[in-house]
Amino acid sequence: MTEPTPLRFIEAVNGFQRTAVIRTAMELDIFTVVGEGVETAEALAARLGIAEKGARVLADALVVLHLLTKAEGRYRLTAESALFLDRKSARFLGDSVKFQLSEAITGAYARFSEAVKKGGTASDGAGALEPEHPMWIEFAKGMAPLMYTTVLKVAEVAAPAGRVLEVAAGHGKYGIGLLESGAAREVTALDWPGVLRLAEANAKEAGMAEQWRGLPGDALATDWGTGYDTVLLANFLHHFDTATATGILERARAALTAEGRVVLVEHVPEEDRVSPSAPAWFAVQMLATTPAGDAYTLAEYTGMLTEAGFTEPTMHKVPGAARHVLVAERRVR
Amino acid sequence: MTEPTPLRFIEAVNGFQRTAVIRTAMELDIFTVVGEGVETAEALAARLGIAEKGARVLADALVVLHLLTKAEGRYRLTAESALFLDRKSARFLGDSVKFQLSEAITGAYARFSEAVKKGGTASDGAGALEPEHPMWIEFAKGMAPLMYTTVLKVAEVAAPAGRVLEVAAGHGKYGIGLLESGAAREVTALDWPGVLRLAEANAKEAGMAEQWRGLPGDALATDWGTGYDTVLLANFLHHFDTATATGILERARAALTAEGRVVLVEHVPEEDRVSPSAPAWFAVQMLATTPAGDAYTLAEYTGMLTEAGFTEPTMHKVPGAARHVLVAERRVR
Repeated sequence: MTEPTPLRFIEAVNGFQRTAVIRTAMELDIFTVVGEGVETAEALAARLGIAEKGARVLADALVVLHLLTKAEGRYRLTAESALFLDRKSARFLGDSVKFQLSEAITGAYARFSEAVKKGGTASDGAGALEPEHPMWIEFAKGMAPLMYTTVLKVAEVAAPAGRVLEVAAGHGKYGIGLLESGAAREVTALDWPGVLRLAEANAKEAGMAEQWRGLPGDALATDWGTGYDTVLLANFLHHFDTATATGILERARAALTAEGRVVLVEHVPEEDRVSPSAPAWFAVQMLATTPAGDAYTLAEYTGMLTEAGFTEPTMHKVPGAARHVLVAERRVR
Repeated sequence: MTEPTPLRFIEAVNGFQRTAVIRTAMELDIFTVVGEGVETAEALAARLGIAEKGARVLADALVVLHLLTKAEGRYRLTAESALFLDRKSARFLGDSVKFQLSEAITGAYARFSEAVKKGGTASDGAGALEPEHPMWIEFAKGMAPLMYTTVLKVAEVAAPAGRVLEVAAGHGKYGIGLLESGAAREVTALDWPGVLRLAEANAKEAGMAEQWRGLPGDALATDWGTGYDTVLLANFLHHFDTATATGILERARAALTAEGRVVLVEHVPEEDRVSPSAPAWFAVQMLATTPAGDAYTLAEYTGMLTEAGFTEPTMHKVPGAARHVLVAERRVR
């Protein structure tokens, strides 16, 4: 047996250092600059107007994180950073740090011990669930590119989607993706007014404005209307306790036609709740930032869905993301 | 080729969440409690006086970090957490977080972008090198257990050490280890007075007070005396630029007998500066917290040592730690 070492513990303790390195890298847009062929510490320093030593230590750290390569003193993008972190890439998702490292989230983690003690966020009020919380503007702005493969998977498994209601639409990309793929005939996107303006702009930019309409309001209080073929609840139910989430699913059932169905996008850990690591870790995020949210297992989603009058869901893994798409049919009672 | 995914980027961005989880785990002393046989979320909640959900999410996160195991809802220590994170273990090193997550260090990382721009710490004054900086009290208190295998390696490769001067002794464990192993005949430990009191207490506790004496002062200014067989510079030279570090080595040479030698404990990355990951990353720590410190390569240490009148060093890897011990002989000029 190998002698135990504390290196894994130390690495976890020092996680905040990695966050700091990434934050600085994105502020300086260093991946975009390396992508332009500025490849040495000296050249990076000159181009970015920073100290050469700072450029060298930062770039070396990004090599340690496998986000750059280094050979003979020259830094180059990896396949991953070229696709996701170079601002000139269509798949650039670097602005997601503005949400992931927003004061609303980092502040919640600064009070994580309190959250563990009380079993819910220590942030003021309802944390991330406060009406019109500005963090969801950052989410809608920065996180959409992170959902790329998930949007494709939803379009694939939700077709044909007919008339769609997208609840807590945020950036609106799921509904827009359904329109673009031809899976949906029309989409109604529900969210707070501030966020909805961004979704509307996205719908227009995609050339889908005619089949798309916004429904401003609070997902838990506003009248959703009826006659939808599909209700889409993407990254939404995890913010609530199971009773509230079940109530939302009951609202979905009431809004659907007899043959309608609900489509969920969720982080779904295994029943052991500790694997795979990314969806399991999502429970930490919910504890830190919401009063009663969680990373629910398939058994728990099945329980909520059947109680609300749906069939057991089919579950589809999203490639390259820690998310699943769940689809359940409205059951005739 | 596998399709690139942003999961590695996201994990680095969210490093601060791991830090928060560890900080809370250590505050609650959860490893010690699990070590006592309190193994379910329900029992942990009752024992720690926290919400059951908080206990479950925290413990699950520690499983994801490989610091606990989970089977049938029962959490147990791993070999690593049993040895290092259970307060009842002789090798407990959990209090190291009080240094690693001290305000002096986390505050420096909050200004990491500034540090990159200027090529040195953005903290006030000399950062970690301010005279009598209280962070070194936390270091001396919390970090000694982290040096366990390094102390053993120093005792092994420095023997026979004769009369020893330990510069910037901190907790004093290297010198005390040399006395305990019989490698040293007597040890003079130099450090600022506040820290030195802790080293003195450690020497007394080890029963080595008679062969040990403290020399309070500033390592760069105080008279070191002469006639030492060994000058020990553990985790010290990396705080300085090469000129200052070379000057310190010249002071060491002047303090040594003709056959004397210098023993360094250092983080030494490969010449590429990006491997292995832990010593390479140490350059980030030095950039964030010191005006001009660095993780120097073997070639750089060899350059400083030979310039200061020493032979090329022999280098010894410390098992289970990201450190090396370097030994160089005083050269007759």
